[in-house]
Amino acid sequence: MAAENSLPTVNRRDLDFQLFEHLEIGSLTARPYFADHDRATMTAALDTAQAIAVQHFQTHNRKADLNEPQFHGQTVHIIPEVRAALDQFVNAGFMAAHRSYDEGGQQLPWTLLQAAFTCFNAANIGSIGYAFLTIGAANMIAAFGSPEQKKRFMQPMFEGRFFGTMCLSEPQAGSGLADIRTRATPVSNSPASSNAPGVDGSLGSAYRISGSKMWISAGEHELTENIVHMVLARIAGAPAGVKGISLFIVPKRRVEADGSLGPRNDVQLMGLNHKMGFRGTTNTLLSFGEQGDCIGYLVGEPHRGLDYMFHMMNEARIGVGLGATSLGLAGYLYSLDYAKQRPQGRAPDNKDPASKPLPIIQHADIRRLLLSQKAAVEGALALCLYAASLVDRIHTAEDEGEKKRLSLLLDMLTPMVKSWPSEFCLEANKQAIQVLGGYGYTRDYPVEQYYRDNRLNPIHEGTHGIQGIDLLGRKMLMQGGAGARLLFETIAADILRARGLPDCAAWAEELDGALARMMTATAAMLPAAKDGRISLYLANATLYLDAMGHLAIAWMWLRQAMVAARRLPDATGDDVAFYRGKLAAARYFYAYELGRLDHWLPLLARLEPATLEMQAAWF
Amino acid sequence: MAAENSLPTVNRRDLDFQLFEHLEIGSLTARPYFADHDRATMTAALDTAQAIAVQHFQTHNRKADLNEPQFHGQTVHIIPEVRAALDQFVNAGFMAAHRSYDEGGQQLPWTLLQAAFTCFNAANIGSIGYAFLTIGAANMIAAFGSPEQKKRFMQPMFEGRFFGTMCLSEPQAGSGLADIRTRATPVSNSPASSNAPGVDGSLGSAYRISGSKMWISAGEHELTENIVHMVLARIAGAPAGVKGISLFIVPKRRVEADGSLGPRNDVQLMGLNHKMGFRGTTNTLLSFGEQGDCIGYLVGEPHRGLDYMFHMMNEARIGVGLGATSLGLAGYLYSLDYAKQRPQGRAPDNKDPASKPLPIIQHADIRRLLLSQKAAVEGALALCLYAASLVDRIHTAEDEGEKKRLSLLLDMLTPMVKSWPSEFCLEANKQAIQVLGGYGYTRDYPVEQYYRDNRLNPIHEGTHGIQGIDLLGRKMLMQGGAGARLLFETIAADILRARGLPDCAAWAEELDGALARMMTATAAMLPAAKDGRISLYLANATLYLDAMGHLAIAWMWLRQAMVAARRLPDATGDDVAFYRGKLAAARYFYAYELGRLDHWLPLLARLEPATLEMQAAWF
Repeated sequence: MAAENSLPTVNRRDLDFQLFEHLEIGSLTARPYFADHDRATMTAALDTAQAIAVQHFQTHNRKADLNEPQFHGQTVHIIPEVRAALDQFVNAGFMAAHRSYDEGGQQLPWTLLQAAFTCFNAANIGSIGYAFLTIGAANMIAAFGSPEQKKRFMQPMFEGRFFGTMCLSEPQAGSGLADIRTRATPVSNSPASSNAPGVDGSLGSAYRISGSKMWISAGEHELTENIVHMVLARIAGAPAGVKGISLFIVPKRRVEADGSLGPRNDVQLMGLNHKMGFRGTTNTLLSFGEQGDCIGYLVGEPHRGLDYMFHMMNEARIGVGLGATSLGLAGYLYSLDYAKQRPQGRAPDNKDPASKPLPIIQHADIRRLLLSQKAAVEGALALCLYAASLVDRIHTAEDEGEKKRLSLLLDMLTPMVKSWPSEFCLEANKQAIQVLGGYGYTRDYPVEQYYRDNRLNPIHEGTHGIQGIDLLGRKMLMQGGAGARLLFETIAADILRARGLPDCAAWAEELDGALARMMTATAAMLPAAKDGRISLYLANATLYLDAMGHLAIAWMWLRQAMVAARRLPDATGDDVAFYRGKLAAARYFYAYELGRLDHWLPLLARLEPATLEMQAAWF
Repeated sequence: MAAENSLPTVNRRDLDFQLFEHLEIGSLTARPYFADHDRATMTAALDTAQAIAVQHFQTHNRKADLNEPQFHGQTVHIIPEVRAALDQFVNAGFMAAHRSYDEGGQQLPWTLLQAAFTCFNAANIGSIGYAFLTIGAANMIAAFGSPEQKKRFMQPMFEGRFFGTMCLSEPQAGSGLADIRTRATPVSNSPASSNAPGVDGSLGSAYRISGSKMWISAGEHELTENIVHMVLARIAGAPAGVKGISLFIVPKRRVEADGSLGPRNDVQLMGLNHKMGFRGTTNTLLSFGEQGDCIGYLVGEPHRGLDYMFHMMNEARIGVGLGATSLGLAGYLYSLDYAKQRPQGRAPDNKDPASKPLPIIQHADIRRLLLSQKAAVEGALALCLYAASLVDRIHTAEDEGEKKRLSLLLDMLTPMVKSWPSEFCLEANKQAIQVLGGYGYTRDYPVEQYYRDNRLNPIHEGTHGIQGIDLLGRKMLMQGGAGARLLFETIAADILRARGLPDCAAWAEELDGALARMMTATAAMLPAAKDGRISLYLANATLYLDAMGHLAIAWMWLRQAMVAARRLPDATGDDVAFYRGKLAAARYFYAYELGRLDHWLPLLARLEPATLEMQAAWF
């Protein structure tokens, strides 16, 4: 295997294509928030990300996999390369690069940063996880925290001095947040007074937190001086279910008014989870308030915790989609290199065993395995960055109607953005192994790790099944179907544009037909939702999600093909092959993948009830 | 996690169903070879297998995964539980149970033994691999070796004193056997004379072997006193390509005329391969003749080595299919148990958060994940055992025409038997993880290991792509298409039977339609083969393989459904639910899986050339 820092994990030409040709993020600089930026500053940020990812993250990806975090009684030992790499990330200013100047940020577009972050994900998804979780948690405090909470917790997070976590799941309640049991008791009602040691009224309402949280990534480590847990808990007397959940800031160590660290809060590590992959990120079971002395501060209003989480959900789910995409990309690029170099076998019509074996990239089935990966990862990247570009456009929209419209579109797309890459870029990793054959199955080559790492993505941040229910049960029905109409109209507008381009017109027709059939199938399903047959309506929600995902990726390929077709006539040098590759991948997706709708749509349209009618005793 | 020996890895009711109801192997006892057996003796063999598998193999499956074989300079250390378990297998007589009484066997049907072996595969596929490889190698000597070779090597293998390996691949030639470089030089032409020490003329023509062999499972260990390598090598002056490959017996230690062990032969372990899964089976890179002193004995005639290997291939590939199926089964049964016990979430139309959470098996998407697994593993098991039953019927056929007909049918089915379970029971293992959610992704639960273990199966014994080329390029064309016609007629005959059963008639119609479309697509492809457009004809061979596999599994579900439909009216007790489960799984496969042909067949029929026309530079 090649030296780790020479692994091909970045396709910079494609990142540039997505950002500056497909999504034209250069146009964002016309907006005041981004006015100080131009292509040069954005390119510099990409260059920096790429260099740090390759030199500091990629170099210990395998080592972190082979040496997962160890719990030694009091502390969790993590190999030192993780901290060193994260220092580079922090020092380059990436933690707050998207935030305003006021907050110490650089006001860089979120889209640009998401593209840059694919370099870290592809290089070492386990190590970079600590930073991404922290950014997410800090963004939540930025959105809903008080000024003092921001100063005391958010600011050190954006400075990389504290890291953060999200504490949602509990051992008995994974996807079922309605059943979380972690309790929050107002300090004034508890034996201790509000002047109890460690309670600081300036941070807002103080509560004693008690309960267990499961699957907490980055839940314990010594990478930073403090860890800020964003904890969902139920205040005594709150309504049952998800409407009685509140959000709390629960630091590992208390923070004094001057920002100095106080004593430990009562948060205990109960155990590490040992995962198939993603081993670099500690994953923990945490216990809050075992000694009755865990103080948490309410964020925002009581009982609105899940709303706040959902507010951040779109961005978190784009992050998962991009992580899955990045692992798919790393596997694709590695197997592509391998296929170009490995000689084996001959053309089917060559009967001369004395002739030289061909590089395996010459075999049709290897090309299929590579094209399938390319179509998946570049299609997924286009979709994730498209969604990220909506975040930027929403954030800086001056027109309220436009903001609402784009927010609705983003809400619609998010289930596919999270789940399509998680499912189909995992499949791409499986194909990367297949290209390498026996070698791919060994731990001497990186592709088996990508496959193990990527298997997490259909599970966390809302399982694949949960995403389907979110799409069909919530998003398709919200605002009387306005979101669905907007999504379909947005796709249709691109189809109309593509019809005018000779190289793309046939795909435009195919997508138009697929869109019409998707709408017909949806229309056949909706009466079940409207007349209360909800279980039947949702029975095949996962397949509906996959079908909508395929439609969205076909749409992204049409968009990419339009750019390629327009630019190809004037292209020179390597760009010619690059644009031809885009057109070939679009062709592959339409020829080999879009046809899956012919399988899915009939069973969706007829509201196939076979799974509902199955009885537990018959298995 | 439950104690390992209580993991649910055996579905005995289904094994009995497949053997005695679906395949009616009881009827084999009318044949002289099996005349001493009856249902009682066969049941006893299954009982023994199940007990040994659960008590001796299953108990160290995880330990073997966590403690893979280690190379300590001279020897390979393997945890002692492996040897202890294999002793139980050997002592129970399973090594030679299929062989004749003359050979020390029990003349048990191969079908019965393959069913019994699923218990070992599901319990611990890594440890049992040593025995299965040995049976395969010994069977090869039984078929093509000389009497003295049988006495000196085969007999100790069937006694479990020696283990065996298959040495085909080389580091530079994995799937491309035409390019193997291992050399065999007749001893008389070499510096040493034919009376050289260690050369024994009574074992046949002696050769000095030199070369490297890669991916050799069980290539080095101390489990037995000797290892017998079956090595493909090229005799100097042999024709180029696969027609110049010969087969040799190359023992790790030489064996004297009296059966006692002589000195070591010159076979060196160059390294262990470290795999993602299947870690219990040592996998090695071996060097033969580094010191110029590696003696091998020719098996059969020169240059016929690949013919001999192919002769054993059907059985070896049934073995892979069954291994993949068994891992799928273990994952299915575990996730089924989990789904029955894990409470989480509520019905979609239940808005009362105070109501009790449901066991997750009540959720439609979990049922889909379970039904999909059930349909895959029980369909695959039916197909593999159907193929095994052909082996028994061929072996004991008294009519030469019948023997030829069944051999042709087995040749046709083998690519699907090997590859469908490898692909779709791996998918089942992915679904088993999904049922467990985050827990399934941890190494505290067995499903992640099944998934890692099963990822090997689409790679070894002919990759998935190689199977497609075998099916479309060889099997579909052989004997002027007679094999294809026989397969299609055999399926059609079952369709005709099923039409007479009201409960199965609709599926019979669907399968009839699918069969007709498969034949139409095939007919559209064949002209390309006939007029020399071989690359185009084979471009989508893997998809053709998947489509034929789906057709074959649909056929197997129709056969199982017929049995269930006939027996249900008179069934009592647990059998009622069992037969209803069979009908429900058949329904699932027809509703959710057979429709994939609607996606695959159009692109097959049009000889889609997108992968052929892709250029390496465009990736």
